[in-house]
Amino acid sequence: MNMTLETIFEAAHRESAVLFALDEVERRLHRLTAAREGLCARLAAHVIQAGGKRLRPLLVILCGGPGPDREPVLDVAVAAELIHTASLIHDDILDGADTRRGVPTINALWGNHAAVLTGDFLFAAAFGLLAGEQTRGAMALMTEAVQAMCQGEMEEGESLFQTSLTEDAYIAHIEKKTASLLAACCGAGALAGGASPETAAALAAFGRNLGLAYQIVDDLLDFSSDDCTLGKPANSDLARGVLTLPVIYLLQEGSHRAAVEEIIAGRACGPEGFARIKKAAEETAALAYAYQKALHFAGQARDCLASIPYLPSREMLLALAGRVVSRKS
Amino acid sequence: MNMTLETIFEAAHRESAVLFALDEVERRLHRLTAAREGLCARLAAHVIQAGGKRLRPLLVILCGGPGPDREPVLDVAVAAELIHTASLIHDDILDGADTRRGVPTINALWGNHAAVLTGDFLFAAAFGLLAGEQTRGAMALMTEAVQAMCQGEMEEGESLFQTSLTEDAYIAHIEKKTASLLAACCGAGALAGGASPETAAALAAFGRNLGLAYQIVDDLLDFSSDDCTLGKPANSDLARGVLTLPVIYLLQEGSHRAAVEEIIAGRACGPEGFARIKKAAEETAALAYAYQKALHFAGQARDCLASIPYLPSREMLLALAGRVVSRKS
Repeated sequence: MNMTLETIFEAAHRESAVLFALDEVERRLHRLTAAREGLCARLAAHVIQAGGKRLRPLLVILCGGPGPDREPVLDVAVAAELIHTASLIHDDILDGADTRRGVPTINALWGNHAAVLTGDFLFAAAFGLLAGEQTRGAMALMTEAVQAMCQGEMEEGESLFQTSLTEDAYIAHIEKKTASLLAACCGAGALAGGASPETAAALAAFGRNLGLAYQIVDDLLDFSSDDCTLGKPANSDLARGVLTLPVIYLLQEGSHRAAVEEIIAGRACGPEGFARIKKAAEETAALAYAYQKALHFAGQARDCLASIPYLPSREMLLALAGRVVSRKS
Repeated sequence: MNMTLETIFEAAHRESAVLFALDEVERRLHRLTAAREGLCARLAAHVIQAGGKRLRPLLVILCGGPGPDREPVLDVAVAAELIHTASLIHDDILDGADTRRGVPTINALWGNHAAVLTGDFLFAAAFGLLAGEQTRGAMALMTEAVQAMCQGEMEEGESLFQTSLTEDAYIAHIEKKTASLLAACCGAGALAGGASPETAAALAAFGRNLGLAYQIVDDLLDFSSDDCTLGKPANSDLARGVLTLPVIYLLQEGSHRAAVEEIIAGRACGPEGFARIKKAAEETAALAYAYQKALHFAGQARDCLASIPYLPSREMLLALAGRVVSRKS
């Protein structure tokens, strides 16, 4: 167990079955990487052992049912974290990031070559886990989600420093980039746990809305936190030209539009330019507006659960939707 | 159909069922990429439409049976080419390659960012195709092969310019890097076509030996051809520090050892250094030795087929083992 998880998802942990399943996921992640020979596994272990929220396995377990005999659910939970880790490793290449989860990135330590291969290795390991008969539905959802994630990252890359970016386009990007995998985790967990297609679809919709709320809060934290709180460099989005909701708000709202547009179009988003944009955001409703959007999607996520007649983890999923928007890191 | 395929594998083409199945693979590759929206699919189509030998789909079809109703075999054949294409796109990032199959690489045209994502997109699309019930065995073989490929590339990266590299270590690298996927294509094709586990294992062993022969010949072509014949830059291996069989021979054989070691240890493997090494190879049995090794593995491949009682494509697979070592590009 790691601290971040305990802090954020304590509601889930009060259930010993969930705790047991998450511990088992952790053991299997360890067995799949640290206990295996070869540099790919060793580098993967470096990233996995740095911890993380384990939000995706938690969603799989909550939606699939946390019983100790739920082998397909555990396979999906482990695969979900491997897919997430693979995409983080590849993202760090794209971003040229030096640290992640408070430790140096693979590309920073071993170069892009090693990072590309380690990510590919983890994708293959993840999909290999889903080759079982009872995880066929999960497999289809997960492979679709990875394709959406790639497409979302690609679109984000195409829209860097584009001051014409609309809120709708931003939501469409983060839906693919982040929400698609969270939706797949919920839907795939449910299917692997034996839920009906209707329940799996409702849980996937929950995951999609949760993912939108999660990413908006992530972007807000990047905008307004410092490096130490985040465990990774703050203001990494705007520095790379990624425009998130507070900035899009400023570009649409009258009072600071020209100044913000000038900073971004001039690609002057270093510490000084960012400080000016941050000040502008604080003088307007930019941060409150973005946060309201996150609350809106968290509310929609909760609404998705209403149609499901029997859902043992309902309370925990509702609590999770609250936690996602109240988190500080 | 493309010219290279016709030239190399004409024996297979005399069978109209094989031809039909390969055409269907080509149509499906097109549908999965060129016909789909989004930049990931568009960039993938750029690479796939540049052609290639389609050796992997051919192996799947020959081992799985080429009948027109063999849906699982076709799924595996398309997935195999997608996996191969994804790994080529990612290799081109590692190698910093500018051209591939005679056209500019994705990383050269659109940058590493786009190349990482397009490869990931194709891996996910490939594994998505294998989510069906009748391709579960194929799925397990393919995900293991991708992990081996990553590990092989990683080991190759660790051994650059290492003049202590042994022939055994080289064979171990190319077994993972190349032979593992060809083995998986044969085994997965067989399983998808309904073969017994014994037949699938024998065909996988055929593919593994064929892959070793194929890669040794590939390395020989890189060593002794020119850019135009190859459709990609020649001497790309040694320029990057990848030591292949003729060079390993020279490093073990007495007469040119010191001179070759000096060039490689000094990382002076540009045109001049390479010309000296090539001359040394021509003055010794280096090229003949490497070619004999390729013939040895091609022979072993043929031997693997002997244990299979009923194999409609036996003649074509035997011919293929011959073609792999007699090809000129």
